[in-house]
Amino acid sequence: MIFEIKILGTGSATPAHRRHPSAQVVNYNEQLYLLDCGEGTQIQFLKYHVKASRVNNIFISHLHGDHFFGIMGFLNSLNLNGRTETVNLYAPFPLSDFLTHMLSISNSRFQFHLNFIPTNPTKHYVLFENELFQIETIPLKHNIECCGFLFREKPRKRKIDTTKIDLSKIPFPDIKNLKNGLDIAVENGKIIFNKEVTLDPPLPRSYAYCTDTMYSEDIIPLIKGVDLLYHEATFLNDMLERAVETCHSTSSQAGQIAKKSGCEKLIIGHFSSRYKDIEPFLEETKIEFPNTFLAKEGDLITLPEKVSQSVYEQP
Amino acid sequence: MIFEIKILGTGSATPAHRRHPSAQVVNYNEQLYLLDCGEGTQIQFLKYHVKASRVNNIFISHLHGDHFFGIMGFLNSLNLNGRTETVNLYAPFPLSDFLTHMLSISNSRFQFHLNFIPTNPTKHYVLFENELFQIETIPLKHNIECCGFLFREKPRKRKIDTTKIDLSKIPFPDIKNLKNGLDIAVENGKIIFNKEVTLDPPLPRSYAYCTDTMYSEDIIPLIKGVDLLYHEATFLNDMLERAVETCHSTSSQAGQIAKKSGCEKLIIGHFSSRYKDIEPFLEETKIEFPNTFLAKEGDLITLPEKVSQSVYEQP
Repeated sequence: MIFEIKILGTGSATPAHRRHPSAQVVNYNEQLYLLDCGEGTQIQFLKYHVKASRVNNIFISHLHGDHFFGIMGFLNSLNLNGRTETVNLYAPFPLSDFLTHMLSISNSRFQFHLNFIPTNPTKHYVLFENELFQIETIPLKHNIECCGFLFREKPRKRKIDTTKIDLSKIPFPDIKNLKNGLDIAVENGKIIFNKEVTLDPPLPRSYAYCTDTMYSEDIIPLIKGVDLLYHEATFLNDMLERAVETCHSTSSQAGQIAKKSGCEKLIIGHFSSRYKDIEPFLEETKIEFPNTFLAKEGDLITLPEKVSQSVYEQP
Repeated sequence: MIFEIKILGTGSATPAHRRHPSAQVVNYNEQLYLLDCGEGTQIQFLKYHVKASRVNNIFISHLHGDHFFGIMGFLNSLNLNGRTETVNLYAPFPLSDFLTHMLSISNSRFQFHLNFIPTNPTKHYVLFENELFQIETIPLKHNIECCGFLFREKPRKRKIDTTKIDLSKIPFPDIKNLKNGLDIAVENGKIIFNKEVTLDPPLPRSYAYCTDTMYSEDIIPLIKGVDLLYHEATFLNDMLERAVETCHSTSSQAGQIAKKSGCEKLIIGHFSSRYKDIEPFLEETKIEFPNTFLAKEGDLITLPEKVSQSVYEQP
């Protein structure tokens, strides 16, 4: 099952040094989920050959311009390119009215249904769910209501090892039982032990997107043990005061959150326009959390399938 | 006196083939005038090293997204970069309310005064004026109220040829008279003839920006004899029907307007995203008007000073 993140914007409030405002695309099982939509996001889609038409769900963390000024253009182009399928837009409520206003002044209307789902960025809850995974909100601490988004795979069923068992001889309800981890009784009274004929499924993977936020340990229980954390690092450590003032984080603070939440890997982004060279962010963050990477536009980060420790002892 | 145009966007409704939405900057005497502000305009400023901080006046032709979706980001970044001087924004009235709305939902306010001057795109009038030039509206025919902008230099005064006359011996009011083309009487009753001591000033230059519009001969008297005409050419000739339907122009139509208005030079732009290669636009337009050029992003088009035919006969 594909689970990967394409980075489209790594800048902060003002674009600079070829860094664009926030936007990234999660590809989960060939469905694209757009996280934030700063100005120029549709142009970044073109640049990095991501198909905008494949986005069905858009999530806006908060209503600062660098996270939503691209939404009008993005939706407008979907419309002009002939979209008819529904687009789900998860965002703070005032954006709905803003979009209505935009359509009204430009004397246009979408040919597709824009399904606006207002978020409550102050609460932790499941915002989206399907059979395979769910997306939870992560309330963040910023100077406007803001939440992150946590993609969490659901546990998968056990895989039947067809080299060990002939499925054509097993009734359908028992196949289901095997997948659910149960042993089954067959005709002659014999028991087929689950551990002998099934394989462990991959472990559920998770990705947390946390921007914009000041350092907040409140998020740690929510993102505990995630495989990948994207955390903002707007400033280097010597700008701690400015970070607090503007409700943003420093590189070390991002690293501390990664360390304290026990995540596997950290990607930092949302770099202030004052920094041309972002390598020092990596150096500072790695002191706290060595498995850190810089978000770079066009990067594709893959979450590989995770082989689980078997729930059964090996013979 | 510098008079030049920097092209920042040559695309139409949807960005494509590295063409961005409409935006261009007129540099007149080191003052920058921004014409339209499609999504990503502030990023184009950075790419082409144009200083956004030097823009004091912004003109929006009409309220279709590809002409104004960049305005929020542009103004927002001016603000975040510490702007305190007034910005004059000339645009159809509903944009004012839209900007207020945007500031409200993002919980922000500008530190500079945004002086909003509502335009009346249906009337031809002088929208802006200073000592050196004026900007007139050009009512266009589109499916929403829309106007072009005509930059027209004012006639300059005659230049005194200091190789012919010692200015220290001429009273100030007479210097003014000479500049205004008058002969002057000096102390001994002698007449100093204007033609003997002054040089012709350069002729006034003019630039007309006409997008978006269907073919309309109504604009011809307004742009008669301009030095440079930017006219949209959204479609090639074989899409005439579609051009009429969407209130846009074809390449030949742009050429015909240039020819019929007797302009010196034509630049075409606003190419539909359906065309990857825009060279055929040039070929088609040149049949009507040979002195045609394609607008290309990053291009700088200079209007050189025009030496006039002397108002006096040569000896």
